Amino acid sequence: MLKKSHSILLWCIAIAFALQTAEAQRKAKVHAEGKSFQDQKSVETQFDRLVQAQSIGENIKQLSAEPHHLGSAGGKRVADAILAKFKEYGWDASIETYKVLFPTPKTRILELIEPQRFVAGLQELPVAEDPTTGQSGQLPTYVAWSADGDVTADLVYVNFGLPSDYEQLNRLGVDVKGKIVIARYGRSWRGTKPKVAFEHGAVGCIIYSDPKEDGYFQGDGYPAGAFKNEYTVQRGSVMDMVIYPGDPLTPGIGATESAKRLKREDATTILKIPVLPISYHDALPLLSALGGEVAPAEWRGALPITYKVGGTGTLKVHLKTEFNWDLVPAYDVIAKIKGSDFPDEWVIRGNHHDAWVNGASDPISGQAALLEEAKAIGQLVKAGYKPKRTLVYCAWDGEEQSLLGSTEWAEDHQKELEKKAVAYINTDGNGRGFLGAEGSHAFEQFVTDIAKDVKDPQTGVSVFERLRAAEAVRAVSAKQKQEALSKTTLKLGALGTGSDYSSFLQHIGIPTLSFGFGGESAGGEYHSIYDSYANYVRFKDPGFVYGVALSQVVGRAVLRLADANVLPLDYRSFHQTVNTYLTEVKKLAEQTREESAVENKLIVSGAYKLAPDPKQHLAEPALKDSVPSIDFTSLQTSIDSLGKSTKILYDLQVKLASSTDKRKEKVNEILFQAEKSLLIDNGLPRRPWYKHSIYAPGFYTGYGVKTLPGIREAIEERHWQEAKEQISVVALTIQKLNQTINTAIDLVKSIL
Amino acid sequence: MLKKSHSILLWCIAIAFALQTAEAQRKAKVHAEGKSFQDQKSVETQFDRLVQAQSIGENIKQLSAEPHHLGSAGGKRVADAILAKFKEYGWDASIETYKVLFPTPKTRILELIEPQRFVAGLQELPVAEDPTTGQSGQLPTYVAWSADGDVTADLVYVNFGLPSDYEQLNRLGVDVKGKIVIARYGRSWRGTKPKVAFEHGAVGCIIYSDPKEDGYFQGDGYPAGAFKNEYTVQRGSVMDMVIYPGDPLTPGIGATESAKRLKREDATTILKIPVLPISYHDALPLLSALGGEVAPAEWRGALPITYKVGGTGTLKVHLKTEFNWDLVPAYDVIAKIKGSDFPDEWVIRGNHHDAWVNGASDPISGQAALLEEAKAIGQLVKAGYKPKRTLVYCAWDGEEQSLLGSTEWAEDHQKELEKKAVAYINTDGNGRGFLGAEGSHAFEQFVTDIAKDVKDPQTGVSVFERLRAAEAVRAVSAKQKQEALSKTTLKLGALGTGSDYSSFLQHIGIPTLSFGFGGESAGGEYHSIYDSYANYVRFKDPGFVYGVALSQVVGRAVLRLADANVLPLDYRSFHQTVNTYLTEVKKLAEQTREESAVENKLIVSGAYKLAPDPKQHLAEPALKDSVPSIDFTSLQTSIDSLGKSTKILYDLQVKLASSTDKRKEKVNEILFQAEKSLLIDNGLPRRPWYKHSIYAPGFYTGYGVKTLPGIREAIEERHWQEAKEQISVVALTIQKLNQTINTAIDLVKSIL
Repeated sequence: MLKKSHSILLWCIAIAFALQTAEAQRKAKVHAEGKSFQDQKSVETQFDRLVQAQSIGENIKQLSAEPHHLGSAGGKRVADAILAKFKEYGWDASIETYKVLFPTPKTRILELIEPQRFVAGLQELPVAEDPTTGQSGQLPTYVAWSADGDVTADLVYVNFGLPSDYEQLNRLGVDVKGKIVIARYGRSWRGTKPKVAFEHGAVGCIIYSDPKEDGYFQGDGYPAGAFKNEYTVQRGSVMDMVIYPGDPLTPGIGATESAKRLKREDATTILKIPVLPISYHDALPLLSALGGEVAPAEWRGALPITYKVGGTGTLKVHLKTEFNWDLVPAYDVIAKIKGSDFPDEWVIRGNHHDAWVNGASDPISGQAALLEEAKAIGQLVKAGYKPKRTLVYCAWDGEEQSLLGSTEWAEDHQKELEKKAVAYINTDGNGRGFLGAEGSHAFEQFVTDIAKDVKDPQTGVSVFERLRAAEAVRAVSAKQKQEALSKTTLKLGALGTGSDYSSFLQHIGIPTLSFGFGGESAGGEYHSIYDSYANYVRFKDPGFVYGVALSQVVGRAVLRLADANVLPLDYRSFHQTVNTYLTEVKKLAEQTREESAVENKLIVSGAYKLAPDPKQHLAEPALKDSVPSIDFTSLQTSIDSLGKSTKILYDLQVKLASSTDKRKEKVNEILFQAEKSLLIDNGLPRRPWYKHSIYAPGFYTGYGVKTLPGIREAIEERHWQEAKEQISVVALTIQKLNQTINTAIDLVKSIL
Repeated sequence: MLKKSHSILLWCIAIAFALQTAEAQRKAKVHAEGKSFQDQKSVETQFDRLVQAQSIGENIKQLSAEPHHLGSAGGKRVADAILAKFKEYGWDASIETYKVLFPTPKTRILELIEPQRFVAGLQELPVAEDPTTGQSGQLPTYVAWSADGDVTADLVYVNFGLPSDYEQLNRLGVDVKGKIVIARYGRSWRGTKPKVAFEHGAVGCIIYSDPKEDGYFQGDGYPAGAFKNEYTVQRGSVMDMVIYPGDPLTPGIGATESAKRLKREDATTILKIPVLPISYHDALPLLSALGGEVAPAEWRGALPITYKVGGTGTLKVHLKTEFNWDLVPAYDVIAKIKGSDFPDEWVIRGNHHDAWVNGASDPISGQAALLEEAKAIGQLVKAGYKPKRTLVYCAWDGEEQSLLGSTEWAEDHQKELEKKAVAYINTDGNGRGFLGAEGSHAFEQFVTDIAKDVKDPQTGVSVFERLRAAEAVRAVSAKQKQEALSKTTLKLGALGTGSDYSSFLQHIGIPTLSFGFGGESAGGEYHSIYDSYANYVRFKDPGFVYGVALSQVVGRAVLRLADANVLPLDYRSFHQTVNTYLTEVKKLAEQTREESAVENKLIVSGAYKLAPDPKQHLAEPALKDSVPSIDFTSLQTSIDSLGKSTKILYDLQVKLASSTDKRKEKVNEILFQAEKSLLIDNGLPRRPWYKHSIYAPGFYTGYGVKTLPGIREAIEERHWQEAKEQISVVALTIQKLNQTINTAIDLVKSIL
């Protein structure tokens, strides 16, 4: 039903040339040979009809009905249920099992011994309004990958626990060496907090949720409202995943039954000190007991106390953690529909299925959208639709412990993925609001087109238009408002880490996208017993209409990639965006140079002796090393060359759309393999697992991305020689990409 | 002893020319004929020796020993004590008494009736550590100039109660008409809050102290620390003093016994609704009971609640206020030392003596510095020193009720002041930290010289150098730090209102200065029973060393002005600074135009329909009128001419220093009278009492200054025609000043 002859298609394209706008022409030509644009559209129209809010809601309810963390009986039941659904939808599905390390708590003690006694409850309380909050089988409140430990020491409040917070403490004369630190959640990824604390000599780390961030300061606590009540605790992983994610015992290889494993003590991603997350109910007696200097204004949260930094030796805090260090099975559910024309080109799409507790929002709301796509595609296939490329739908296990299921599968299948993977598309939960889209920048126009085609369920305009309106309203200056209002493309964010795309993008170099709606579904349930179905339907996506929107966005991305005549990878966008990153790091170097010079001048002038309140006994900051001149020419030259070649290639891609030459297949292969040119053989400094030269999680931000990470972090950390080396490294990867683009250009020229 | 012959002086000046830097030359020449620079310096050296921390401390203790508000027996005792001290110091002193209106509370009721009952205590609690906090004779917690009233209504939280806060409420669909509002202290002057509330139809206004501003968020509460405890209340005046300050019944004339008085109901500066200030202890049950939308993020304080805006009709709040509207005596203590050479040229210096309760910091710490200057000058005179000009030292009464004592005295003596007043120098309390200096911009270099001569007691460098260091450290960018570090002059802030200088500067046009140290003596005692001696010596200025520094700064200013050969008014600084104000208002007009245009574009595009969370039902902002082109040419031309003439005059002032011509006296008169050129005959729009075209308190900021007020406020309030008119008005005053300067130039030329 969907096939048309080439002659009709060519005629269609001719009409399109004559009548349509440049943008529509591009769409028609790049996406639509083999099936006409008209056909692609009708596939999507039928797909949209098959996506149902009701079944999304039913799946969320079913899959979040009980606690189902990695290694639990509930987790196995959820994996089996998902497997059954894929099969029911007509997919070729199976479970692939890995054996991964997973610490669960045996002992958790936190108590204040001096100046008065307080024993932390470490317990979230069930609420009557929400039936699943009182279930058995819940994991206690803890963080995975804390060390076993038993320490008694003084306490220091370290704000968010960022490196700059320790600089401030240093000026205040407070040293955390041999002490326990208490940091609040927020700003940096949770795993960064104990890592930085350990680097500064702390012997233990407590992380608490201040009501400022996601408690009563933001809105009513659960169940009256969506935010944290006084007992809510954020569980999570504190693995040092910026070194490598996945099973700590099997870096770089799949954690199969027989895999060769590191000894636990040799695994560099497991923390060296005990760490415990707590509620603000448990934090209040500790923070209230702190003496010493009043914390700087921006360190203060929303508890009704004077925040002080402590470290005066007047507190005695006891922190003890012990874990079961078991190997447990991780069940990845993998479902496929074989491509009709290019079975060895895979469009991969994933969302994890494991939760810290019930996880209605994280991850099940995303999983339900994935299943709804799978259902709709299955029905399309039953009605005669045949995707040209193979679809691989994945429900990952063990994501919460730092991407265990996806990383082990990707490492296990690395060779095959390197050959076949056209793209990886990720989601991880969903809510009400605005489209968030991040990923490989060559997908910018591709995602823009989709965002203009999918309707926002609350306003009826496209999700692109709603996002643009919000950006215009939020913009601060008249100039920025004007710019936002006249935007025609959706800017793709860069990917750091924090969900299952990491292996695909940053280790293997597969073009990657990540989607999710949000911004109007804020709350404090994240990784707590309150992330429940009852919570979700009240505060996240009542009516599951954004579940539908997410399926429509991702479904389009999957179908268009599966059927594209010429793959919609436009490296002009990549060039433009990477050029802005280069401008940023140049500016960073320049600013660091200026700031270091003027700071040193201030220090030498005595200003830091004269300015502070003498009663505070503030230490002077240390003199900084001066910043050498850093030459970015090699990288700028590479990027400029790329600018020229990507323009030429794009024009040829448009022309190629109307060709029927078989060699197009090779062009497509070059297009989706091009991202791999950006990989560095030896990876990033001090973390070889991360090979992408453009995107990586920040060494000190955790989830947060650093673009041009090798260069940017070298400047931030004042490693000037390394910054120079990394400029050469990135210049080379950009040159490799340029060569790849030129190979494609030559090939297309030979075809046309 | 201090006199030298002119020939020796001229020789000294010749040496100075040869050896000193340009700056020192200027000092020597402008300040120092009649007495040589060496002599002026030796006067100041002796003055410094006579200023004693101990006696400052004793005076603070004595004068804050009991409650001494306007009209109280304690107030009379303080006035008498000050009178006795002046006399003891050898001054010709007397008390001038005015009869002023002063409301004190008869009934104060605040209660929550629905949804549950709560009766506000309205009571500060004595603390054992501080003996004066439990004294009798304290004024209850209240604000003066609230209306009598008895209202029961729903409650709305209006943040700081700024006009922009009501715009936000409007978008949230909340109307305060017929309701009581609760606003927090801060951002705008307290009197602005009920005024704006009334303009929006509110029937009552509660003002509370949120712990965010000056409670536990900032530091420990009193007596553990300096900040507000849960019962501390800020008393104050809510008079609409931006219309006119002073006794509401006698605008423009002295409130003598026989003065013709308005009827109370005709006094426009008395509020129309009941107003009550409360502690956060009393505010918490009210704010906790509020429902409705969660308040915008920047509206939220530090109480452990979810701040909501209310206005949902679920609360019933009862507010009742009744006052004794009595005429009471205000005792201004006026002390003089007659000038030897120019008895009819007055250097006036004032600080009030009345307090809301004990007022150790406000105002007694400033009053004690004033008395210490008076003591030292008295001793100098006894040792043979003779100031050339007459010194007038004033201790004002009734300042706290909105400048009653100083305003009535200035209005009463207006004719004489217009002729004789060379300058008015104000202080109003003092603390530890950095020099704050504000006033007529022609004094910029004069104050800079003083700030370079007085040592900061904590660091030993000059107060100028310490201030510069702090500005450099606080500056955000490398560029700003660099600029701050290389500053050579102290920028004088512009004066709004809030202390006794208003009549002198803004009504009569006398060159004015205001000084005070602070920035390291923060606390929450302001206008409460906790502003005590015990508090002061712990948290404000332990050892009274900044009391000494203040006496040294103000003493120098007084002595240099009294003895100056050519008055140190340098109108080049005035020109430069006013030119920056013009640049600001031009930019304001331009920004308003751009922002209005783009906001309207956003509204028309539907962005304000699409962007907000539909669950919030946010109203779209209204379309704005477009901003016409505003022509600033006439004012710019006037200011440019002034730039030329002030340069010429300054060069002539330098040359004039070495002249002995009697006509210099006339030049000096022109110099100190020049500020009056800047007065507008009919005053500012809607407030004719305020006549200065350059400085005024903001109509909607209260204390906060607006420079070029007629123009700036017309633009802010979108009165385009008025903005154009005010440009002409200010252009004329600047032309008048320019003519005055040219008259001085001609005169000096005829002398030299």
